[in-house]
Amino acid sequence: MLKEMLLKVKENKPLIHNITNYVTVNDCANILLGCGASPIMADDIDEAAEITSLCGGLTINIGTLNQHTIPAMFAAGKKANELGHPIVLDPVGAGASKLRTETAFRLLKEVKPTVIRGNISEIKTIAMGRGTTKGVDADAADAVTGATLAQTVALAKNLALETGAIIVITGAIDTVSDGKKTFCVFNGHPLMSEITGTGCQLSCLIAAYLTANPGSPLTATVAAVCAMGLCGEKAFERLTDLDGNASYRNYILDAIYRLTGDDLESGGKYELR
Amino acid sequence: MLKEMLLKVKENKPLIHNITNYVTVNDCANILLGCGASPIMADDIDEAAEITSLCGGLTINIGTLNQHTIPAMFAAGKKANELGHPIVLDPVGAGASKLRTETAFRLLKEVKPTVIRGNISEIKTIAMGRGTTKGVDADAADAVTGATLAQTVALAKNLALETGAIIVITGAIDTVSDGKKTFCVFNGHPLMSEITGTGCQLSCLIAAYLTANPGSPLTATVAAVCAMGLCGEKAFERLTDLDGNASYRNYILDAIYRLTGDDLESGGKYELR
Amino acid sequence: MLKEMLLKVKENKPLIHNITNYVTVNDCANILLGCGASPIMADDIDEAAEITSLCGGLTINIGTLNQHTIPAMFAAGKKANELGHPIVLDPVGAGASKLRTETAFRLLKEVKPTVIRGNISEIKTIAMGRGTTKGVDADAADAVTGATLAQTVALAKNLALETGAIIVITGAIDTVSDGKKTFCVFNGHPLMSEITGTGCQLSCLIAAYLTANPGSPLTATVAAVCAMGLCGEKAFERLTDLDGNASYRNYILDAIYRLTGDDLESGGKYELR
Repeated sequence: MLKEMLLKVKENKPLIHNITNYVTVNDCANILLGCGASPIMADDIDEAAEITSLCGGLTINIGTLNQHTIPAMFAAGKKANELGHPIVLDPVGAGASKLRTETAFRLLKEVKPTVIRGNISEIKTIAMGRGTTKGVDADAADAVTGATLAQTVALAKNLALETGAIIVITGAIDTVSDGKKTFCVFNGHPLMSEITGTGCQLSCLIAAYLTANPGSPLTATVAAVCAMGLCGEKAFERLTDLDGNASYRNYILDAIYRLTGDDLESGGKYELR
Repeated sequence: MLKEMLLKVKENKPLIHNITNYVTVNDCANILLGCGASPIMADDIDEAAEITSLCGGLTINIGTLNQHTIPAMFAAGKKANELGHPIVLDPVGAGASKLRTETAFRLLKEVKPTVIRGNISEIKTIAMGRGTTKGVDADAADAVTGATLAQTVALAKNLALETGAIIVITGAIDTVSDGKKTFCVFNGHPLMSEITGTGCQLSCLIAAYLTANPGSPLTATVAAVCAMGLCGEKAFERLTDLDGNASYRNYILDAIYRLTGDDLESGGKYELR
Repeated sequence: MLKEMLLKVKENKPLIHNITNYVTVNDCANILLGCGASPIMADDIDEAAEITSLCGGLTINIGTLNQHTIPAMFAAGKKANELGHPIVLDPVGAGASKLRTETAFRLLKEVKPTVIRGNISEIKTIAMGRGTTKGVDADAADAVTGATLAQTVALAKNLALETGAIIVITGAIDTVSDGKKTFCVFNGHPLMSEITGTGCQLSCLIAAYLTANPGSPLTATVAAVCAMGLCGEKAFERLTDLDGNASYRNYILDAIYRLTGDDLESGGKYELR
């Protein structure tokens, strides 16, 4: 089922509007190009909604949010809802500051995202109004392991039911739920957390998969999550003794570029819970 | 004729002021350092004109333009005109939003650029007040092929005469015209459109070549366009089966760094039309 | 003495708040992750002080400063002082514009940094109120060579005594002084100046070392300066005939990721002056 999702991205070449942080924006653009989609970044209120209209999907990432980009997030989000375009919300650092937490809550109130993707600390903040967020990385106390997986599955499922969005919680094991069905994804490598931006990149990748597969949002999301994790594995195999996180970053993007439908179909490791 | 242009960049080490988008800015800085120039990025109205005065050339790139950087573009552009510094205008996404199209038109009215570089969709927007821009990438309907080359040459020539700027239209074949002479450049590789920022990088590279070669703007521009395309070819040759667009991005920058005057002289493929 | 400094970073995993320029911000995040620390970037006045409180250390880098990020620098700096967190101030381009020079001076008046790191032109500007800054790179007239080293040492020492901050002047030879003790560091490679951001990265690295080693700010700073230079050497050894500044950038970050305490202890080349 994953193969078709990937092939549709290459076939449809969806144009994705991204309002995203300036830390990882170059990687976000390159992962979109690498998977077969096309990126445009635009965060000024004077053009945000218009750019959204031109595109097929939208990513809203609140890392490095500011007073000027926040209104653009709302304008773009509302326009995407109006047009029925899929939206991925990435609440980077929700829980780390009042501005981030409140912006995430306001976005959820005024914009209906198709997918919310975050680490466990960010998603807990969204679900419970508070979290133990340690900056933009998941708190160690929140680590998703085999032991805590059942709780994470329940969290994702409940939040999906509450928000109407597909919830993606990334970690050692990734969880994807639309409230009715919940998938656990076992692809990935721990080293992915030692480069900046794998989460941001995944959010953009999900937006591309959703946009190219409008009838299958849950499957498209699972496919994107598997693709990212699988590429993290492939990139790890390629590392030499001298390579570190910078080369790893390049190899993951390279792997996304090279990933075929058959690779994804055979390499994706997921289970329905 | 190309060799001398490159050697002058290495000899003069021009300092280039760049008001550019945050997506590809790191690559822009590294390509300038790689070719022998020196970059400075500054986009606040309180310092823009002053930084322009310190530099020898200016790049204005409207990707991720906003209400705060637009006034800096005008202040820097006017100061560069006043001082006789070359300016490269890169109208990223002109046609994609009213803000981008109008800013590009206003810039052309109030600032006289030395070179305008864009893809065919952006340049059509500049020339005709409208385009079929698909985001920041050229629309497929606009592709520059052998069949449409005569039209593209005419477009570049007429816009050059109208604006007084050298027009560079990049695509499968690149066109460079000052209205009197028009060159077609056959260097490059299709994969260059699958990484973000090759256009932005080329605009900065042109600014460096123009600044180091004040007496020969057309030749300097052709040299920079050939250099970029030739490095796209060299980088492609270096790709392994595992490499994708991330490694390709690095290899292009590496090739610019390694490019010698003799490489450029012998590898540049251009024709006068 | 250096080994222990590095090991404490890996052990304590300090969270560092960075208000930094958008040119090199991705590299700053990756070098922090690579050394074992964790980065967060936040530059809006509405969250700056709160993010500072969450973190252990702060980097303030004035490259691409603007009217909206400047107030955040002050808010974050004052909060860090209040909490006793170490602050690294990187006065990028001080001397290049009135805005940069005055912002640097105002920061020094209202915020007490633990370390000020810049090239010789930037530090001269700070020390003397004027410099010969050529953009963001050190002016050739200011090059730190064996012949001018005594002057540079005196400059660092006097400015350290005057400001109460540790002064780091990077160049062919690096100088680190707290006013009482002055170290010269002989690690590094000239090619480091041909990629953008090695200075910005070092400032973040120093912040991580300072935060993880609260009792030994001078030794921590020397250790970070040696680490950066040593990784510049290691990365240079790895270059092939096709590699240029883009690969060099990746290799330096890779080397930081791979650097062990023993590597640093045996490879650090410094002298007390």
